[in-house]
Amino acid sequence: MYELCIANKNYSSWSLRPWVLLRALDIPFAERLVPFTGGSGESWDAFRAFLPTGKVPCLRDGEVTVWDSLAIVEYLAERHPGVWPADAFARAWARCAAAEMHAGFAALRGSCTMNCGVRVRVEAPDAALRRDLARLDELWNEGLARFGGPFLAGNAFSAVDAFYAPVAFRIQSYGLRLGDAAMAYAQRLLDLPAMREWYAAALVESWRDPEHEDEVRRAGTWLQDLRRAG
Amino acid sequence: MYELCIANKNYSSWSLRPWVLLRALDIPFAERLVPFTGGSGESWDAFRAFLPTGKVPCLRDGEVTVWDSLAIVEYLAERHPGVWPADAFARAWARCAAAEMHAGFAALRGSCTMNCGVRVRVEAPDAALRRDLARLDELWNEGLARFGGPFLAGNAFSAVDAFYAPVAFRIQSYGLRLGDAAMAYAQRLLDLPAMREWYAAALVESWRDPEHEDEVRRAGTWLQDLRRAG
Repeated sequence: MYELCIANKNYSSWSLRPWVLLRALDIPFAERLVPFTGGSGESWDAFRAFLPTGKVPCLRDGEVTVWDSLAIVEYLAERHPGVWPADAFARAWARCAAAEMHAGFAALRGSCTMNCGVRVRVEAPDAALRRDLARLDELWNEGLARFGGPFLAGNAFSAVDAFYAPVAFRIQSYGLRLGDAAMAYAQRLLDLPAMREWYAAALVESWRDPEHEDEVRRAGTWLQDLRRAG
Repeated sequence: MYELCIANKNYSSWSLRPWVLLRALDIPFAERLVPFTGGSGESWDAFRAFLPTGKVPCLRDGEVTVWDSLAIVEYLAERHPGVWPADAFARAWARCAAAEMHAGFAALRGSCTMNCGVRVRVEAPDAALRRDLARLDELWNEGLARFGGPFLAGNAFSAVDAFYAPVAFRIQSYGLRLGDAAMAYAQRLLDLPAMREWYAAALVESWRDPEHEDEVRRAGTWLQDLRRAG
């Protein structure tokens, strides 16, 4: 059986991607969660002990170690149907959109780090964040319109949706606003059983990583913490 | 025939990846070069007119637009042999290594931006750059040792080599030092006919983008400019 190494569900957006894909496609796997706890340096050393880059996620399949979220997706795509859309055109689009998130959206990822259990109001998004949000809106609208929804590349949840799943939590945590179709899509992601399972687990985690907590407090006006007290 | 949109050969590391892959695999394509010329804002608007994200590279295949370097690789891999290694284990490794470059090595990419035609001495690499270089050395050594070389995932040039091709130019431009096996591999990349063709074209470009020129001058001690006078 696959083993998927992940970090805290509350914080680790990179971990969420393959996790939600595996769950949504009903592919069995064992979860190994190693939390960020004491600042990035300490966690990095701990992760380095068993992960090639000191980073999550990492998939183990027997002797094979797959240490990047997009490479995990391609590894799974060679072994299971439904990871990417069956249609070649939709598949090319989906791969572009997933890869764009993999290397891009730096402002969104940097200034609105994933923190599932908190609610913060971003008072005035800066220019870089506004540009990322505009691109996000454009990209989601394009996919939903072109392939007919309800998911980004058609009628089935695929890897491209998994890559944008962390954005749905960011929209919820930071009160970000996109157009109606994009907001409805984000809510659709949040309503998925796999996403609800992740979210529930995130809320009951008691670990708090000071670096992640500082990031979220810098992002805007603190409203609410829905997590179980630490 | 494919059309590949790229930017300046002297600067555009992202463009080099699919370009050198197509050339090395002898896949015919038309090149469309739109240079960075007047600061990122102006170029971005120019690119936006015909590229979905305002970024290069972008592959066109009839009605299909593939706008990310890693998605281009997967698009080609569905249509041509040799893009990834034939062996499943080597292919998984190669995809991880390529994806790691796609989303990572931020210090190396940020502080040693590709500029094929100049020579700069980096006097004292900072901690982040030293960590990227150590990881690069480790990763290259692992691939070369595990799959027997002379390329990263075995005896044939594949997409993972294409993803690290810009690093070979960075090593040359900034006088970066890795271990012997890694330095020999970087030289092997520079000696490829496709890389020599790219390099020769970069040297005769007359465009100078102030932003890229400032970046390289900030990186260390200026030694030499091998480019044709502008």
